[in-house]
Amino acid sequence: MSPRVEITDPDDPRVGDFRDLKRADRRPDRPGGRGLVLAEGTVVVRRLLDSTYPVRGLLGVDRRYDELAADLAHLEAPFFVATAEVMAQIVGFHLNRGVLAAADRVAFPPVSGMISTATTLAVLEGVGDHENIGAVFRNAAALGIDAVLLGPGCADPLYRRSVRVSMGTVLHVPFAVDDRPVGDLLGELRTAGFTVVATTPRPEAVPLADAGLGGLRAAVLLGSEGPGLTDEALRAADRWVRIPMARGVDSLNIATAGAIVFAALAAGADGPVVPESRA
Amino acid sequence: MSPRVEITDPDDPRVGDFRDLKRADRRPDRPGGRGLVLAEGTVVVRRLLDSTYPVRGLLGVDRRYDELAADLAHLEAPFFVATAEVMAQIVGFHLNRGVLAAADRVAFPPVSGMISTATTLAVLEGVGDHENIGAVFRNAAALGIDAVLLGPGCADPLYRRSVRVSMGTVLHVPFAVDDRPVGDLLGELRTAGFTVVATTPRPEAVPLADAGLGGLRAAVLLGSEGPGLTDEALRAADRWVRIPMARGVDSLNIATAGAIVFAALAAGADGPVVPESRA
Repeated sequence: MSPRVEITDPDDPRVGDFRDLKRADRRPDRPGGRGLVLAEGTVVVRRLLDSTYPVRGLLGVDRRYDELAADLAHLEAPFFVATAEVMAQIVGFHLNRGVLAAADRVAFPPVSGMISTATTLAVLEGVGDHENIGAVFRNAAALGIDAVLLGPGCADPLYRRSVRVSMGTVLHVPFAVDDRPVGDLLGELRTAGFTVVATTPRPEAVPLADAGLGGLRAAVLLGSEGPGLTDEALRAADRWVRIPMARGVDSLNIATAGAIVFAALAAGADGPVVPESRA
Repeated sequence: MSPRVEITDPDDPRVGDFRDLKRADRRPDRPGGRGLVLAEGTVVVRRLLDSTYPVRGLLGVDRRYDELAADLAHLEAPFFVATAEVMAQIVGFHLNRGVLAAADRVAFPPVSGMISTATTLAVLEGVGDHENIGAVFRNAAALGIDAVLLGPGCADPLYRRSVRVSMGTVLHVPFAVDDRPVGDLLGELRTAGFTVVATTPRPEAVPLADAGLGGLRAAVLLGSEGPGLTDEALRAADRWVRIPMARGVDSLNIATAGAIVFAALAAGADGPVVPESRA
C-alpha cells in the first residue's frame, strides 16, 4: 500500500516532483524540463497507476487518498497528502482535480516493432497542438486503432495537457515517435503491408463513404489543422480520402476528422465492427 | 467604416461592454450578466460581423484594426483601439487574440418554424458543458446539419467559451432553445416527419454502420457525457444507434460521437454525399 505522507510545508523537498508544475512536465531538453509524466484527477491517475510507467509518487487532498485506496494497494511509492491550499502553493496554481501522480518516462519503442503487430495505425505529421494530440489518442483508443505514430513536427504526447485531454489513454495506446522524413516512415509502413490513407480536403480525394476502408490494414495519415499534410506525405500515400464538408474546407478539428475516419475503418459497411470487449 | 476610437484610460465608460469580461457574457438572469454575445480573435470576430447579430462595438490592438479593415467597411459601430496592456486592464486578464467584438442577442426563433425547413437536426439533452456545445455546433456546421435544438438542461450556446470553441459557427447555424419535457419536443419532431435517432452506448442499440442513416430526414439526439440520455428521451426515439467502442463505453467526447453520426447521416453508403458548395 502506498504510504500516506502528510505534507504541511510547501517547501518540503519530498514533493519536488510536483513543484512549479507548469515546467515539470517539459521534456528534459527544454528549460526547466524534467520530463516527468504527470496525471491529474482520479480518472487519469487511475490510468497511470494501471500503466507500465513507473510511478514516483502522488500528491493529493485527503479525500482522494481514500477514493483511490483500492488502486494504491500494490504501490510502494508515497501518496503525499496536503490541503488544497498547500497543494496550490506547491504546484503554483489552484488545481481543481485534487490529485496528481508523477511517473518516469519509459523509452519509446521503435516503429518497426510496433507495426509488426498492429492492424490499424494513426500517423500524425506536424501536429503541434498538445490538446489535439491528446484528443487523437482518446479517439484512437475508443475506436480501436492499435497504435499511433508521431511523425516529424509533432508535439510531445506525454506533456501534461496531452495526457489530460487523452483521458490517460496516451498511457495505454502504444505509440512511437519517428523524426525521419515522412516519406521514409510511410515507405516502411507500405513495405510492412499497410495501405496508407491520407486524410485531406483536396477535391481530388475520394469521399470517405466511397473509399471502402472497412476492414483494411490501414495507416490513417493526419496533418496539422492549418497547412494540412505536406506534399511529401501526400505523395507517399496509397489513397487520399476526404470528409465531405458543408461549409468550406478545414472546418473540422483534426482529432474529430480522425475519429470519423477511424470509425469508417472500424465499422465500414463491408467490414466487421470492432468487438466490444477488446482491450 | 467603423470609426477608430483610441482608448488610453482603462476606466473609459465607452468600453463598458468589454469590462470584467468573465461576467459580461453571462445571461441576463445571472449575477452581473449582461447577456452580450462576445467574439474573440479575427476568425470568430469575422463570423460575428457576417452574422445577423447587431454588433455594438469592437476592442482590439492596432494591428487587428488594419487586419479587419475590409470586414469593417459597412459597420457603423466603433472599433476601440488600445494597447495590449490597456486591453488587459479593461477585460480583466491578458487576451492573446488581440481583438474582441460585442453584439446584442437576438430573440431565439421557436422550434416550430425551424423544423419546417430543416432536413437534419441535432438535438441536445442535458449538455451542460459550454465547450461541448461549441464543438457540437462546429461539427454540425462542417457536416451539414441544418439546425441544432437545445432541449432541457443545456448550457447557453452564446456563452463566450461556446462561441469560441464553435469557431463562431454558433452565430450562423440556426438553433432554438426548448425547455419543454424532452418527450414533447421529440413528439413534435416525429409529427413533423423526422426520424428521431438516439445515440446511446446501450448494447440493444444498432451499430451505426448497420443503421442505414444515409439520406434520412433525421434528428440526432445526443445526451450529456456522464449520465447520457434520459429514459424519457430514449423512449421517445424511433431508433437507437451506437458507435462500437473498443475500450469501454462513454470513451468518446459527446461532440465527437455526434460528428461520427452526422458524417454517417451525410455520407451513408446508400445516401448522397453533402454537396461541397452548400452554405
